[in-house]
Amino acid sequence: MSPLSRIYSNDRVTLREVGLRDGLQLVKIWPDTSAKIEWLKREYSAGVRHFEVGSFLPPSRFPQFADLPVLLEAIASLEGAYSAVLALNDRGAEEAMQSVADEIVCVVSATEEHSQANMRRTRADAVSLVGKIAAMRDDAAPQKIINAGIAMAFGCSIAGTVNQTGVLKLAEACLDAGADIVGIADTVGYAGPRQVGEMCRAMQKLCGDRPFIIHLHDTRGMGVANAAAALDNGARVLDGALGGLGGCPFAPGATGNIVFEDLVFLCETMGFSTGIELEELKSTRLIAENAMPGEAFYGALHKAGAPAISEWKA
Amino acid sequence: MSPLSRIYSNDRVTLREVGLRDGLQLVKIWPDTSAKIEWLKREYSAGVRHFEVGSFLPPSRFPQFADLPVLLEAIASLEGAYSAVLALNDRGAEEAMQSVADEIVCVVSATEEHSQANMRRTRADAVSLVGKIAAMRDDAAPQKIINAGIAMAFGCSIAGTVNQTGVLKLAEACLDAGADIVGIADTVGYAGPRQVGEMCRAMQKLCGDRPFIIHLHDTRGMGVANAAAALDNGARVLDGALGGLGGCPFAPGATGNIVFEDLVFLCETMGFSTGIELEELKSTRLIAENAMPGEAFYGALHKAGAPAISEWKA
Repeated sequence: MSPLSRIYSNDRVTLREVGLRDGLQLVKIWPDTSAKIEWLKREYSAGVRHFEVGSFLPPSRFPQFADLPVLLEAIASLEGAYSAVLALNDRGAEEAMQSVADEIVCVVSATEEHSQANMRRTRADAVSLVGKIAAMRDDAAPQKIINAGIAMAFGCSIAGTVNQTGVLKLAEACLDAGADIVGIADTVGYAGPRQVGEMCRAMQKLCGDRPFIIHLHDTRGMGVANAAAALDNGARVLDGALGGLGGCPFAPGATGNIVFEDLVFLCETMGFSTGIELEELKSTRLIAENAMPGEAFYGALHKAGAPAISEWKA
Repeated sequence: MSPLSRIYSNDRVTLREVGLRDGLQLVKIWPDTSAKIEWLKREYSAGVRHFEVGSFLPPSRFPQFADLPVLLEAIASLEGAYSAVLALNDRGAEEAMQSVADEIVCVVSATEEHSQANMRRTRADAVSLVGKIAAMRDDAAPQKIINAGIAMAFGCSIAGTVNQTGVLKLAEACLDAGADIVGIADTVGYAGPRQVGEMCRAMQKLCGDRPFIIHLHDTRGMGVANAAAALDNGARVLDGALGGLGGCPFAPGATGNIVFEDLVFLCETMGFSTGIELEELKSTRLIAENAMPGEAFYGALHKAGAPAISEWKA
């Protein structure tokens, strides 16, 4: 079994919980290491298996990710759990390579303007970095997979409209450079369900049997509707953050990632079994809420609970 | 042109704003009459044309609806605006008949248990009341339309599972009894998008050229996804409440109706022109928020605004 198919498959729906990474990107208060580990373990016990937990960045500037190696060890100790980390430059890639992370995530912007503003490099340089990191992986850590995430894939708050063909070309370039899997991100929540459905059909065509990832933000309330459209059009790996945590420096005032709990409920109503228990997820949310006082948490499912009928899972 | 086709058509999407009715059903503080009129006028200026604004019930028990006749007169003074009111018994029906309301809404429950708990009558008696009110209308106010709303159409928090065939039979019985249009309501937010899509296809088959209404609650975060599924499957008249106001005595702790602002955004991204301006809607929301301190308002669009690209309207 290839490292990719060990972690992801198109035969089932996989939900990646990115709260401890994307959810902590901009916060002023974050859970301490023991609360983070409690969060991970509780979610694991709820059935979550895919965790994106941080970014290898200088701890002086991003202290919320300083304990990343400890979290990776904690995930490695949970049978069948997988960890993903961001590596945004050479140094980050080296640290990621030496860590026990299963997946290294690189970010490529769909627009030149966002690429410069966010990463201070061109899109071509970002794709080259994907290639460099993939080569490092081939040498040093062949069991790890490389995930290239394309930010602003549905519209950019700096450059404006993003055309689908350009995103697909970038996705193809990342795969050619050695990425195992590509993600497409609605970083600033510009998309509606029709646009998401069309993009997913095109991505499915591009990727063939290989899964792709969709990463949605609920900036304009379309998160769950976009996820439904993605699932209807071939997406099988979706990101979400506990309580809808997460913002974006390029989307001021924005609601965060799609709410993980509501996403689980959506999948189950659509007949995609997630293996995740909603009640246990609610208790994970309490851990996060207690650890992050003053932070906005979103979502509806945690308040109402699942319907009081056995047939709600399709 | 028939009274029905004057108000609703399958050739366009119509959004009914029900905040001043469903949104005020359970609140302890409500806007005074002048704030309600400001709300209506600002929404009208944003482009909203369909308002459900109250229920003819004893003012001693439902003081939030005591000013209903004044609101109906205010709507009647706005060119091309339409008003809907609930009439839940004979006396309410008589008052509605004498009012300037364009549409009288009757409620029928999908389950015997909810019918008894909510209205203290059987479903058969509720359908008979629809017939009686339709006959009163034929005699006294032939320009008004009768709307029969089927509550708990996607699952019932008292009786449990609701089967689609039963709902369709009830819808047919309401049309046979003289209703001009039928609405189906996910009163307690049990549905997911697949169930909503299937029900809408079946309703479209039942209703033929005649439009039907879908009324969604965001109890479990599925509101916008369910609206997208409804639009994809033939629904052309959808309810929403400003700020997602509204609860349900049978859905404790629940988030309210689908957020009207987010619903407008959804429709536009899907290529259904609503004629509604989002910025003006945001200022209507401020009126409501100021008039109802302490009340929970939901939604995301009002925070982020529309995307900064001209192509966001499909």
